[in-house]
Amino acid sequence: MFAARSVPPDRITSLHNPRIKDVLRLQEKSAERRRQGLTLVEGYRELTNAQAASWVVATLLVCEELAGAAVAQALLARAPDGPRPYEYLPVSAAVFAKLAVRERSDGVLAVLRTPQRTLAGLALPPNPLVIVLEAVEKPGNLGAILRTADAAPAHAVLVGDPRTDLYNPNVIRASLGGIFTVPTVAAPMVEILAFLQEKGIRTFAAALADDAKSYTTTSFIGPTALVLGTEADGLTPATRAACDETVIIPMRGQLDSLNVSVAAAVLTFEAVRQRQGVGANKPSA
Amino acid sequence: MFAARSVPPDRITSLHNPRIKDVLRLQEKSAERRRQGLTLVEGYRELTNAQAASWVVATLLVCEELAGAAVAQALLARAPDGPRPYEYLPVSAAVFAKLAVRERSDGVLAVLRTPQRTLAGLALPPNPLVIVLEAVEKPGNLGAILRTADAAPAHAVLVGDPRTDLYNPNVIRASLGGIFTVPTVAAPMVEILAFLQEKGIRTFAAALADDAKSYTTTSFIGPTALVLGTEADGLTPATRAACDETVIIPMRGQLDSLNVSVAAAVLTFEAVRQRQGVGANKPSA
Repeated sequence: MFAARSVPPDRITSLHNPRIKDVLRLQEKSAERRRQGLTLVEGYRELTNAQAASWVVATLLVCEELAGAAVAQALLARAPDGPRPYEYLPVSAAVFAKLAVRERSDGVLAVLRTPQRTLAGLALPPNPLVIVLEAVEKPGNLGAILRTADAAPAHAVLVGDPRTDLYNPNVIRASLGGIFTVPTVAAPMVEILAFLQEKGIRTFAAALADDAKSYTTTSFIGPTALVLGTEADGLTPATRAACDETVIIPMRGQLDSLNVSVAAAVLTFEAVRQRQGVGANKPSA
Repeated sequence: MFAARSVPPDRITSLHNPRIKDVLRLQEKSAERRRQGLTLVEGYRELTNAQAASWVVATLLVCEELAGAAVAQALLARAPDGPRPYEYLPVSAAVFAKLAVRERSDGVLAVLRTPQRTLAGLALPPNPLVIVLEAVEKPGNLGAILRTADAAPAHAVLVGDPRTDLYNPNVIRASLGGIFTVPTVAAPMVEILAFLQEKGIRTFAAALADDAKSYTTTSFIGPTALVLGTEADGLTPATRAACDETVIIPMRGQLDSLNVSVAAAVLTFEAVRQRQGVGANKPSA
């Protein structure tokens, strides 16, 4: 099949190609991603999500054998005459296999410019529901929480003192597009708490504390920030002390913690449940 | 420090030791685990959870340098005079490093006999809340759901037509002890559905279907089984058709699915919320 189609003259077949080496470096080094303000996204659907969210594509790498002629044409068609808005690099299957991380890759990999999102630039609706994560470290958990935020929905995810790069390709992959659809800002935790206070958003610290109220008897009807810490250590004492209230998801079993993405989802969906319709518009008594 | 303590004469220092090779084979091959009815658990706390749940330890491997003298003594003390109830193998740090999977290991690794749990042997309380997973494939998701089941609690997790080994060490690790505290049975999906029907447990299929009611307006007060499929494909049509009701977690964002462990948790904690106290004992209208 492939041999029958026309092969672009500039199709890259060598892993020693300097541009391929550049991309591999981005794949492997978070410092390099941060320095250049770039990250990577794999998959045609994810790329489409990114573009719909106005992320800027710097370079597009396409393996036509995997992507198929239709997708390759569609991607080329977005860059018609004149100077292309992005660099388009057709690559061989062998080169693409070296670049791809996903098990069943569809032959599309993009280098994206990461947006510079700040608290000052964050647009929130009048009665916001926000998820705040202190010191989150696992890309898979952050990704799952972004999916939850998209679905519930929560209006923003604020990441305080992150221990993982917000634009780590593993976060982007695990979020299945959530990184593009959910406003997400990384900032020092003290700045996030000051921002929430200034905006009049009530902060609820999720903690295993004696003075904590059950989340089902706490009202999340007003402007709400759900603040969660790490699985291992929970929130820092400083953050706990700075929050307006402490809430608990009662643990009735023999173990002592939930997965943090599970805890975030249980709190977020309870807040949404309380905010739905008139009859449901209260916490259960 | 270590040089100053007495070294047991039978401390294993070679990776070519036949017992070490046996353990590595169990680590790597699920077929071998199934054939021998054995699995592995790492960590002193996890081992304690397993023993508290009456799992039988076949072999205990301890790196005293990592575990410390106190833990090693405690483990030895459980096997005092006479024939030990389990084989005790002290190993060198180099050997342990080869066996360990966790990043910060505490020097304790056990080979456990996997229990033969069947639907017929499952003891449920009068008004059970059960999580049913069809064709679950990611050990991390199954592990997170076991933590949720422990905490909420749900009274059992039934795994139909699993694509991952229920006693995969990755499931055990991700469950943080949940595999020991939560009754868990793997069986063909048709047998699980027949079992639930026979017990009078109402089955709720989680699905993105037009005829699905929102989970917050569905009552989970009576005997309840929450039935979830894979993230990629959802439930099979046969299972959907066999369930009593279909429920949906409304997705209000731009993406189209939640992480399956997140969806399971949102449904399970809503069921628990409805079951708590008088005021909350109803779905929101």
